Amino acid sequence: MQFSKYGNKYTKISGISSLMQDLGSALSQESDIVFMGGGNPAHIDEVYKKFSAQIQSISTNEESYKRFFVNYQSPEGNLEFRIALSKLLSKELGYPISEKNIGLSNGSQSAFYTIFNILAGEHADGKFKSVMLPMIPEYIGYSEIGIEENFFKSQLPKIKLLKDNYFKYEVDFDNLEVDDGIGAICVSRPTNPSGNMLTKDELGRLDLLAKKKNIPLIIDCAYGLPFPGVVYDKKENYISDNTILVFSLAKLGLPGCRTGIIVADEFLIETFNNANVAMNLSTASLGPGILTNIILQDQLIPLCRGTIMPFYKVVRDEILDYINHLFKDINYRIHVPEGAFFLWIWFEDLPISSTDFYEILKRNGTLVIPGEYFFHGLKNNDYVHAKQCIRVSYAQSVNSIKKGLKIVYEQYKNLFIN
Amino acid sequence: MQFSKYGNKYTKISGISSLMQDLGSALSQESDIVFMGGGNPAHIDEVYKKFSAQIQSISTNEESYKRFFVNYQSPEGNLEFRIALSKLLSKELGYPISEKNIGLSNGSQSAFYTIFNILAGEHADGKFKSVMLPMIPEYIGYSEIGIEENFFKSQLPKIKLLKDNYFKYEVDFDNLEVDDGIGAICVSRPTNPSGNMLTKDELGRLDLLAKKKNIPLIIDCAYGLPFPGVVYDKKENYISDNTILVFSLAKLGLPGCRTGIIVADEFLIETFNNANVAMNLSTASLGPGILTNIILQDQLIPLCRGTIMPFYKVVRDEILDYINHLFKDINYRIHVPEGAFFLWIWFEDLPISSTDFYEILKRNGTLVIPGEYFFHGLKNNDYVHAKQCIRVSYAQSVNSIKKGLKIVYEQYKNLFIN
Repeated sequence: MQFSKYGNKYTKISGISSLMQDLGSALSQESDIVFMGGGNPAHIDEVYKKFSAQIQSISTNEESYKRFFVNYQSPEGNLEFRIALSKLLSKELGYPISEKNIGLSNGSQSAFYTIFNILAGEHADGKFKSVMLPMIPEYIGYSEIGIEENFFKSQLPKIKLLKDNYFKYEVDFDNLEVDDGIGAICVSRPTNPSGNMLTKDELGRLDLLAKKKNIPLIIDCAYGLPFPGVVYDKKENYISDNTILVFSLAKLGLPGCRTGIIVADEFLIETFNNANVAMNLSTASLGPGILTNIILQDQLIPLCRGTIMPFYKVVRDEILDYINHLFKDINYRIHVPEGAFFLWIWFEDLPISSTDFYEILKRNGTLVIPGEYFFHGLKNNDYVHAKQCIRVSYAQSVNSIKKGLKIVYEQYKNLFIN
Repeated sequence: MQFSKYGNKYTKISGISSLMQDLGSALSQESDIVFMGGGNPAHIDEVYKKFSAQIQSISTNEESYKRFFVNYQSPEGNLEFRIALSKLLSKELGYPISEKNIGLSNGSQSAFYTIFNILAGEHADGKFKSVMLPMIPEYIGYSEIGIEENFFKSQLPKIKLLKDNYFKYEVDFDNLEVDDGIGAICVSRPTNPSGNMLTKDELGRLDLLAKKKNIPLIIDCAYGLPFPGVVYDKKENYISDNTILVFSLAKLGLPGCRTGIIVADEFLIETFNNANVAMNLSTASLGPGILTNIILQDQLIPLCRGTIMPFYKVVRDEILDYINHLFKDINYRIHVPEGAFFLWIWFEDLPISSTDFYEILKRNGTLVIPGEYFFHGLKNNDYVHAKQCIRVSYAQSVNSIKKGLKIVYEQYKNLFIN
C-alpha cells in the first residue's frame, strides 16, 4: 500500500500516541505502575453517583433512551443541551451566549483539530498561516493536529523565579510578534502542563494583538472556568467577540463520553458544524444527555466548586508538602500550580534529557510526561529548559502519587551516583 | 476572520449537512413530518431491553463505570472488546483476525475520513490519488470527506431491468478502469442507497483489480455482515488480505454511541490509530462497553439474525406490497432491496430533478433523500438517471411510512397536472 502525505505522517508513533499508549497500559488492571502520566481525571465518588444516576435515568426510560442512543443528533448537536448550556455560560461569563454560539464535538481534541485547520494551513491566496502559541510549554495534544507541516509558531516564556522553590512563566510580550503569517492565537487556561492561570490582563493583551490582525484568540478551557473549574485562586473569566472558547466534559470525569464544546461567533460555529458532519456525521449524545438535567437543576457549578475543585486542591496541597519535604536536598522548582491537576517540575541540574529520565522512571515503575513534548514550534532543539522539566499528574490516589514521587526522587539522585 | 482552504470548504452547507439538519428537525419532538430521510435506525423493543440492561450494569458498578467513563481508552481502543470481536469475526468470516487487526473510531464516518485520507490525496511523489467508487450511486456521507478536492473517481452502473417494476445495478466491469491515479477502491455492501448486495464474485473481481495496483479494497459494512446483518438473502461474506472492512454499531440501534470498527492489516491499523489519537485523542467507550458482554455471551449474532434483520424484513415486505398497489398507475421502478433499510425508487418520467421533488415533498410533510447526492465524482451533470431517483428509509413505523409514500405518490401525480 502507498500512503498519502497525510497518511505517511501517521505511520510514525507521535508523542501523543505514545503517551496515550502508556496511559492505556497503566490504567489496565494488570499493571501496578504508578500512573502520573496522561490527563486522566480522578474518580470522585460524589461525581460518580450524580452522573451514574443520570445514565440510569436515560437508559431506563424508553423515550429518553431513544432520543439519546437510537436517534442521530443533528449537526448542531442536542438542542436542549445547547440551550441549557447557553444560559449557564451567559450567566457565569456575564456575556450573552445563545445556543447558536455553541457547537459540539466528539471531545475537545476533535474540536481543536477542526478549528485549527479551519483557521491555519494553506489559504486560498496560497499563503500559509500558523497557529501562534504565545507561551510554550503548551498542551501536548496540539502537536500532531495540523494537516500541514510546521503548523505552529511559538514564543518562549519569561521565567520568573519565586521563593520556596517555585517559579512561574509569563507571556513574553516584548518579543511576541503576531504577523500576517498567523491564523489564530491559542492558549490553554489553566495552562497544560504548567498549571499557570493567565491573568485577565494578559488575555486582553493577546486578544488585542489578535483583533489587530483580524484573527481569533482561542482559549482552551479543558480544566478551566466555569467548568470543570479546577482553578484554585484566580477566578476571573475572559470572553470577547473575538474569542473561541473550548470546553470539555472529560475533566468533569467523563472522558469516555467524548464531548467537546465550542463557544464562538455563529459563522464559525456553522462552519465547524459542517466540517464536523463531513468528518464525524454526528457527535456522541450521552455527554449532553447526562449534563442537561444537571445544568437545568443548577447542580453543575456547585459540583465543580464544592466537590471537584476541592478534591484536587486537597491532593495538591498534600503533595506539595510531601515534595518540599522529600526533595529538600536536590535542586528542583515547581511551577506555581494555579489550576489543572499537574505539577510541572523543573530540575535545572538534570544531567540527561527529560525524555531519557522518563524512560528510566518508566522502567522503575512510574509514568510521567517528559517536558520536551510540550515545546511546540521550536526552530531548533537547543532550548535546555525544555529538557529539564517533567509533568506529573496528581489525579490518582495520594498514596500512589507519593510512591511515584519517591521513585522520581530516588532515580534523580541515582543519576548523580553513576 | 480568514479561513484556510480546508475551512472555506465548510462555509457552505453540504448535502450531508443538510440531510443531517433535516434529520435533526424531523426527529425532534415538535415535528410531525414523516421521516424517511437519513439513515436513522429503528427503535426495536427487544434490542432496547438488551442494550439498556448493559448500560445499567456498567453505570451502577463502580469498577466498570470507572473503566468505561472515567478512564481514557488507549489508542488501540478497549482491549477486551477487540479480543471478543476478533474471535467473533474470525468465526463468522472464516478468516483469522486478531485484536491487532481491529481499530476503533468515533463512528464509521470518522473511520472513513481517516482511512480515505490516508490512502488518497497528494502523495509524497507529488502525485494525486483518488478513491475509486466502482459503482455509483454510493453513500452520501463520502462526499465531503476528502481533505483535497476531486477526491473520487467513479463508474456508472449497468442497469438491469427486472420484472414487476424492479431493477438492479451491476458493476460495469467492461468500462471500469483502475489506473495509477487510484489509491483505494471502496464499495458499501449492502449498497447505500440501493440496497444492492454485491456478490462474492463481484467483490473478488474488484479485489483482484485492487491487488494488481497494490491498493486495498474497502468494504463499508455499516448495514452488512455479520452485524447488524440487515441482509435478506445473500449471506456470503467476503474478506481477504487486501480488504479493509468497516463496521459500525449505529444500525444495531446505537448511533448515539459513535462506535466504528476497522478490520485491516496491522500496519494500516497502527497508522489509523496514530491518526485517530492526533484527531480525537481517544474513542468513546460506551459502545465497546455495551457490546463486549453481549458478544462474550454469544448474543450478538442471534440478536441480528433473530430480531434486527426480521424486524426490517417484515416492514420491507409490507411496504413493497403497499407501493406496488399504490403506485400502479405511475411509472416507477424499485431497486431490488437485498439489504439495508432503504427503498431506492426510480421515476423515469420525473419531470423535475429529484432535488426539486425532494423540496416539494418536504413542504408537504415528508422527508426523503434526493438521488443526485449519491452520484459522486461525475464529471458533468448530465446523467439523467441520477435526477430521477429518491431514497426512502423504512426504519420508522409502517403507518408513518405509508403516510409518507402516499404523499410521494400524490405529489408525483401532481407534477403532471400542473
